[in-house]
This record gives sequence, C-alpha cells and structure tokens, in this order.
Amino acid sequence: MDSRRVFATAIRTFRATRTHRPQCLRQQFSRRWQSNQQQTLPHQRHFWTTGRVLLFTAFTGSLTYLYGLSETSPLVRRSLARPEVQSSPVYATKSQLENAVQELRQTLGEDAISTDEEDLHRHGYSDWSSINIETLPVAVAYPHTTADVQENAKCCSKYKIPMIPYSGGSSLEANFSAPFGGVSIDFIYMDKVIELRPDDLDVTVQPAVGWMHLNEEIKHSGLFFPVDPGPTAMIGGMVGTACSGTNAVRYGPMRDWVVNLTVVLADGTVIKTRRRPRKTAAGYNLTGLFVGSEGTLGITTEVTLKLAPIPQHTSVAVVSFPSIRAAASCAQGVIRSGIPVAAMEIMDEVQMRIVNQAGQTKRKWNETPTLFFKFSGTPNAVKEHIQQVRTISGKNEGRDFEFTADAEEQHQLWSARKESLWSMLALKKEGEEIWSTDVAVPVSRLAEIIEISKKELDDLGLFASALGHIGDGNFHESVLYNRHDPEERKKVEECVYRMVDRALEMEGTCTGEHGIGIGKKASLVKELGLDTIGVMKKIKASLDPAGIMNPGKVFDL
Amino acid sequence: MDSRRVFATAIRTFRATRTHRPQCLRQQFSRRWQSNQQQTLPHQRHFWTTGRVLLFTAFTGSLTYLYGLSETSPLVRRSLARPEVQSSPVYATKSQLENAVQELRQTLGEDAISTDEEDLHRHGYSDWSSINIETLPVAVAYPHTTADVQENAKCCSKYKIPMIPYSGGSSLEANFSAPFGGVSIDFIYMDKVIELRPDDLDVTVQPAVGWMHLNEEIKHSGLFFPVDPGPTAMIGGMVGTACSGTNAVRYGPMRDWVVNLTVVLADGTVIKTRRRPRKTAAGYNLTGLFVGSEGTLGITTEVTLKLAPIPQHTSVAVVSFPSIRAAASCAQGVIRSGIPVAAMEIMDEVQMRIVNQAGQTKRKWNETPTLFFKFSGTPNAVKEHIQQVRTISGKNEGRDFEFTADAEEQHQLWSARKESLWSMLALKKEGEEIWSTDVAVPVSRLAEIIEISKKELDDLGLFASALGHIGDGNFHESVLYNRHDPEERKKVEECVYRMVDRALEMEGTCTGEHGIGIGKKASLVKELGLDTIGVMKKIKASLDPAGIMNPGKVFDL
Repeated sequence: MDSRRVFATAIRTFRATRTHRPQCLRQQFSRRWQSNQQQTLPHQRHFWTTGRVLLFTAFTGSLTYLYGLSETSPLVRRSLARPEVQSSPVYATKSQLENAVQELRQTLGEDAISTDEEDLHRHGYSDWSSINIETLPVAVAYPHTTADVQENAKCCSKYKIPMIPYSGGSSLEANFSAPFGGVSIDFIYMDKVIELRPDDLDVTVQPAVGWMHLNEEIKHSGLFFPVDPGPTAMIGGMVGTACSGTNAVRYGPMRDWVVNLTVVLADGTVIKTRRRPRKTAAGYNLTGLFVGSEGTLGITTEVTLKLAPIPQHTSVAVVSFPSIRAAASCAQGVIRSGIPVAAMEIMDEVQMRIVNQAGQTKRKWNETPTLFFKFSGTPNAVKEHIQQVRTISGKNEGRDFEFTADAEEQHQLWSARKESLWSMLALKKEGEEIWSTDVAVPVSRLAEIIEISKKELDDLGLFASALGHIGDGNFHESVLYNRHDPEERKKVEECVYRMVDRALEMEGTCTGEHGIGIGKKASLVKELGLDTIGVMKKIKASLDPAGIMNPGKVFDL
Repeated sequence: MDSRRVFATAIRTFRATRTHRPQCLRQQFSRRWQSNQQQTLPHQRHFWTTGRVLLFTAFTGSLTYLYGLSETSPLVRRSLARPEVQSSPVYATKSQLENAVQELRQTLGEDAISTDEEDLHRHGYSDWSSINIETLPVAVAYPHTTADVQENAKCCSKYKIPMIPYSGGSSLEANFSAPFGGVSIDFIYMDKVIELRPDDLDVTVQPAVGWMHLNEEIKHSGLFFPVDPGPTAMIGGMVGTACSGTNAVRYGPMRDWVVNLTVVLADGTVIKTRRRPRKTAAGYNLTGLFVGSEGTLGITTEVTLKLAPIPQHTSVAVVSFPSIRAAASCAQGVIRSGIPVAAMEIMDEVQMRIVNQAGQTKRKWNETPTLFFKFSGTPNAVKEHIQQVRTISGKNEGRDFEFTADAEEQHQLWSARKESLWSMLALKKEGEEIWSTDVAVPVSRLAEIIEISKKELDDLGLFASALGHIGDGNFHESVLYNRHDPEERKKVEECVYRMVDRALEMEGTCTGEHGIGIGKKASLVKELGLDTIGVMKKIKASLDPAGIMNPGKVFDL
C-alpha cells in the first residue's frame, strides 16, 4: 500500500517532467510528417501549403536544435546541473518494479530479493530514530558479493529504482528510511573480515562487520580499530555517516581511519577509491568524499581500515564536578596541557541519576556533572597523565577523583558511560519514545550550549539528559516524550531545533557524528547555505543523474 | 611569444571542437534559408525543389533536435560528463585576453595584473621542479582579498581564461605551471593570520602564510600547527597538494588539520566548505575534496586550521644501522609497540655522506642508513619512550644511539634531516639538475622498494640519495643529472617511473605528499584506472564545465 503512494507520486512527477516532452514531440512530428507525406508525395497539389508547413518545421526544428547545442542553452545547462532531474526524479512504475524484482531473482536467485511485509517494515522503520516516515522500501536485496550489488545497481538504474544501503540499522536521523520506496540493500551476508595485514597495520572488511566484532577478531594481532560509535554500528554505516565516538579525541573520527573503499556507482560501475598506502596525495580524495555521503553517491561494498597498536597500558578515571562549567573548564585545562588522554567524556547530573536508577552498574555514583577519562600508553606515561589530570581537576573543583588500572574495575567505571543510552531506554515508560540527537560546537562554547539546552528542556518539564565528547565539542541530548501526544512531540522538536540553531550561531554544526539523513536537511541548509549545498548537488548529479542513490537524504533532490 | 603559442593552440583546438559546429550549421542554414527565400517568395516557381530542400532540413533538423533532447542521446550524455569540453577546452583568444587584463585593471587597479616577462617566467618555471614546460602564464594577478579573487574568476570565466593558484611555489611536479597559458593567481598579498582562537585550538589564515611563519606567530599561545613540509611551503599550496611532512606519523597529514576552506569557484561563486566545529558529519566532506585537488576545482582564499598544544617536553634521537632493512625492521618494532614517537625518519648512507660533505651541520655522522626520532609528551613519558626505542633499535643492530633533550643539541641532531635537500643542492655542479620525487607503499614494503630503487640508480652511475617518512611508508629519492644530456635525463626519467610502477605493484601510490601536477598524470591512470579517474572527471566537469581551473593538472582534460 505504501508502494502505491510511491507509484502515484512517480506518475505525477513523470507527467510534470521535461524528459516526457521528447516523446510527445516525436509523436507530434511523426504525425505531421506522415500527413505531409500523404498530402505531397502521391500528386503535386497544394505545394504552397506544404511549403509553409515544412518551412515552419524546418525553421523551428533546426533553430531549436542549434540552440540546444549552443553553450548558453538552458537545455545544455539543465543537463549539466540537471536541476529538474534533481528536483523531481522519475522512478519506476509498479510494473517496472515487478519486472526488476523478477529479473533480479532470475539472475541472483529467489532469496536475493524479499518483498515480505515484515522485512520491508524492519528496513524502513526504527525504534531508535528521532524520525520515522510512512513509506517503506518495496523490496529488500540481500547481496553476497560486490558483483551481486553491481547486478542490483544495473537493474535499479535500468528501471530508475531507488537504492538504500543498510547495515547495522542503528542510525538516528532516518538515514536508511525509504521516502521514495525502492530497494533496501541489506549487507547482512557481507559480514566477513577479508584480510588482516598486521605488518601494514590495516584490514579489509565487508560492510556488515561490526566494529566490536572486528576488534574481537583481530585482538590476537596486537592491533585494534579505534573508532567506537554505538555498540551495534557496522562498518558500512560508519562509513556512510562519518561517525566517531569516545576515542575520537585521541584517534580522530572515521574519516581519518579509512584507507580505501570499493564502491558500486549508480550505473553499476565498480570503483576502488585508492590503493593501500597509509598516506597519499594522488588525485581527488574520493575516499573522503564517499565517507559521510550516506549512500547518496554510491554503495560501499568493501572497506580497508587503518589499525592502531593496542596500547601497552590503560587506565580509567572518574571525577565529579559541581557544575557543567567546572567540568568543562577542567577539560579545557587537560586539552591545553597537551596530555594525550585516550578519551574524555562528560555526563550531566541527570544522566548520572539515570545510571544509578537503572542499576546497570554495581556502584552508586555522585549525581553531579561527571568527567570520565581513559588513559593509554606506556606504563609511566599513563601514571604521569593521571597525576597531571588529577591536579588539573583539583584546580577546577573536581572531587572524588577515582582511577584504576585493573581491567575489571576499568570496565566497571567506564560502563556507566557506555551504558548511558541503555540506562535511558530502561526508564522508557509504555507509550514513550526517545529523541536522541547531537550537535558540535567549537570546544570553548560547549559548556554554554549544554547549560542553555538543558534548561530549556527542564522548563518544558520533560525528562532529558546530556552527555558529550567534551574534547571534540560534540554532545548528545536524549529526551523522553509521550508518543501519543503530538503536542509534546512538537515541543521536543522545537527544543531540538532551537538547540541546533544555537550550535550554528556558535559556528558549530547540526551534527557531529549522526549525519543528516532526513531529520537535519533543513538544518544543513541553515548551516552551509544554498551555494555550498549547490556544490554538493552538482557532485551528486554528476555521479547519480537519475537520483536513485538513497534519494531524499542529506538534501532534497 | 609564449602567449602566441597558447593562442595558436587555442585556435587549433577551437577549430576541432563541437561547440564550433552550431555556428557553421547556423551559417549553412541561414544561407540555405535566404536562397530559398529568394527562390520561392517572389514568384511561385520551383516549389518541388524547395519542397525537397525544406523536407530534408525539416526532417534532419527536427529529428536531431528530438534526438538531442532524449535521455539516451550522446549530446545529453556528453553535456553531462562533458568529455569533449573536457578533452579540448576552448580558451580565450588573444584579443579576449587583452580585454580581460584591461577590465581587471579597471576594476582592481593597474597593479592587480602584471604581464611583465620576468614575472611570467617566475610563475611558470621552477628550478626545483622535476618537470618544466615551455608555455608560461600570460598574466599574473595579485589579489588582496577574496573579493579580488572573485573578480578575477568572474572575468576569467567570462572569457574562458585558465586560472592557476600560486603561493609558495615550492611544488615539484609542475603543479603551478601553465600549459594553457592563462592567469597565475599569486597570493603574495594575502599573507595574514586572520584570527587565532586559542580556546578553540584553531586559527584562520590566508593562503600565503608560510607554516613556519605561522608557528612563530602563534607560539605565545602555547599551540602549534604540526604539518611540516618543505620550509618554504605556504598554507595555500599545502591545501592544494594535500602535503604532509615528518610529523605526519604522529599527527597525520594536512587533510586531518583543515577545519574549513573559503573557496572561489570557477564562476566566481564564493563558498565556505563548513563552519568551525572540530568534528562534523553534516553533508559531503567538501573540505576533504578541495584539499589535494591542486586548484582544479576552486581557488582557496581562506583556511581554518586545527592547532595542537606544544608538547611539554621533547627530545631527539639518532641511531645508525648496517642496512636499510635493519633500520626498517627497527621502525616496524617501534610502530607495533605503540610508542607514540613524534617523528621517525630514515636517511640512507649516501644522504648521510652528503650531509657530512656539505658540512652544514657541526658534527660528523656515520655514513650508514640512519633513523632520526623525535619524541614529545610529558617528561617521564618521553624518557620512557626513548628507553623503549633504544631497546628496540639494539635488537635490530642499531648502534651509536644518541639522544638529547637540550634544545640546541636537538636542533643540531635534527638539522641533518631538515637540511638534507639543501645539502644535496649544495653539491649540485654547474649544468646539473635535481630530480626529487616521492612514492608511498604499505609500511611493510618500504625497505624493499628503497633498496631496489637505490640499486637501479647506482647501476646507472648517477648520484642519488633516498630518505623517507618510514612510519608512513613514504620515501623521497633525489637524483642529480646533467641538464645538457637528454640521454641522461631520459635514464633518470625511466628510473623514476620504474620506481613509481614498483610502488603501484606493492599497492602503493605514485605520490605520498607531492601531488600529481603534470609529472604524474600517467602514473595516476595506472594507479587508479579510468573508472575511478572518470569519477574525478565528472566531479571536475560539474564544478568547472569550461575547464578553466588549473587545466592540464592531475588528469588530462
């Protein structure tokens, strides 16, 4: 039934677009041409009338042709930037979709495509997402190889069917939803670690490898992959959303850890963005362009990642502060001192209370703003870093500084941070939904934006908590609201977007690590403006002229 | 006289291109149209002949028009990817160039544009470059503001005049040469540090700020910019070539340190690639795309850079090895142990001899393969790192391990590495030229490629040395040859490109930090293949349809 809506739209759009015109004109012309044939060829009457008709056709026809070729012609300009292809993509009709599914089943086997209702729902809806839409994909593809994805792309591009890559399904801004229907490409069967090269400190994996699973599997090599977003995230989606995590303050975000990508383009062309050097200055940085493009430019089927040596020694410390500001100023002190902390996280008093209430960690915590530190390196270095951080936190009203080098205790301490989202979800009452979002600002503004944004939510009487990667100026806000109360949902929405606007006023970004998806398209326009987004659209149009790669995401087509 | 050659080419190209056709056809058509008018309108004779002529025109004219509009038409497809606009851009005629220069002088003042022969030569030729071409720019623009660059771009795009950005002029692959003439945009007057924001750890600068000058100017803040290519490099060019340097093993390459860019596009549109968060997942990574695009997509006029805290403590160590392989295996040991060295450089025995001969550093060095280490961090951490590295080098036949924490001595030790290129140049005899180039391979292959490549050059009896950023798998080879002996030049060329091919066989890259320019276009095709370069070309065509942004670089238009 959702698909019907898609087809209706598709047909309306189809009627509206230029690409339909040539057909009409062709018919028009051939009709006229036939009638002229009949009139003139058999006998030599009415030459003058014919003359005028032909004169007219010759004149308009040829002139328009010349015009069409000329540099300045809107036809040429349109076909360069393709705004109307962009503004109203023409997608497959229902029968074309059925043909496509049939063709793919013939080529790749019966199980290659599912149209099971349950399956469609699972690939178009998410409990975690701050936004869900009514339309669902009309089919789910299950490729086993890059060649399978290529077949899917060839078929989808032949019939103009949207393709939406799907791996962990943990994104929060409707990044994998299907506003135009189409086929969700689920990589569940492409979950292999293809090759680990310890001496080169890199590894090649398929999109459905989870980052935690990867680290388990390569542990024996003494290496690890440092990017640590939500526990269920998979490499494919991590590439798509340019995610990061708690280790980013030391190791940098996803973007810094991708060596190369194998990408299937809209028309089925398979490219490798580069070879395997850790460093290159050879040509455009396509790797960096595809990372964070949310599947709107191509579909990643293989990823080579840099790896880091597992630190010789690690430790975790937790320290409480009377206010967010005090905690932030301690964090600033640590950053400016050049102490290479492995992670530095902040949780507000609400989040600490939630952790206590959820009781998912053994100990009871001070219910005040709290900083979590991870230290790693050579043994004496770690000792020294802890000592220096302890001193700095002391100067910033920090109290109950606790640290441990014992692995089990470290896990205990750090788990409060790691479990935070689950702790929040554990408190979710029947009929409640969670809105979890992130922004990032220049580091000096973080305390301010957290304080104002928290106060706004408290004033609404809503249950909200904040936590953040304080070293990166990136923070997350989670709000619980009644799903059956549109008024309340509206209030939350207004609050979230006021926070986003505030981040932009501070020269920040509407998302530090979740991506744009559908949820933040309007904010992206505010953040970058139409000229910058225009450049993105031109790049998109040059690689995906028919607009079939995850349409409706990042910016409107 | 160089400009004459440009115009000749331009006119030849112009004759060859499709865009010329409409004109011919227009004339053809109007001639025919007039003649038909004469024949038919005054009196009613020869209708049949006219009929056929018109019939023909109507049929061909209109059909081609319809064909031209249809999706599948090569006209449309061509105007999407614009291969022939790409393959033979049509640039300004001589008189158009003169108009452009006049217009720019009127808008921006007499000094805004120079056509002085000496000036043109300085902006089209380089003593350092492995490649120089005969054509020179036909003018040099000296903008003072982004608005000036915008005026230049509007004018150049109006007349289709190539634009070539120029800052430090220290690139090595003819990255700033002018194969199609055009205007060199010299940023010498845009050399200001616009704003330093210590609490955000970032700084905004203009393109002609040198990285060493920048570090001098911001020293008081306790922060520094870690990317350290050749001493004369400037931020604009560093963005263009995606350079790096000795600190990359600890801090990463240029790409990781650019927050945002202000870019003037081909048509004069000014965009900012993003706002000022240290981390973002908002939309396509345009910053990362423009970094390394060598001015072929747009001209950078402002750059915001991340900064790092100046380490509390630093030290330098030097250790000699009996062979490149022993040195490399020591380096591997250091990397895998996770010791966060600030830099790790290798110099071969020839390079060490050169340093001794040039006598630019006080001490005498062992003339064997040598590793240079930089350590930085908290005091005990540095002590510990030195101790661990000393142990690892001992296990790998390292000898005469020397280290110092004294600033002056550190400078002494490190200078041997920093002075290497100058030392080589100091030995350049009359009539000799230097060919300096770089490749990068997966780290485990570095020793092998250095050994083979050195042997090849020694066998030629040429004077060559190798040094490299061993932690990144990136190394440089410098060769002296007789500029007056084409045979010798040819030998060097063959050797260099065999080395590049070897790097590619090892899954490496043809350049780790110098960029493609003109010198490595063919190698880039070998490295990435036509499909991947096709994606780059489509992106280029979408942002610079007329091909006026630094044409002839990275790939052939």
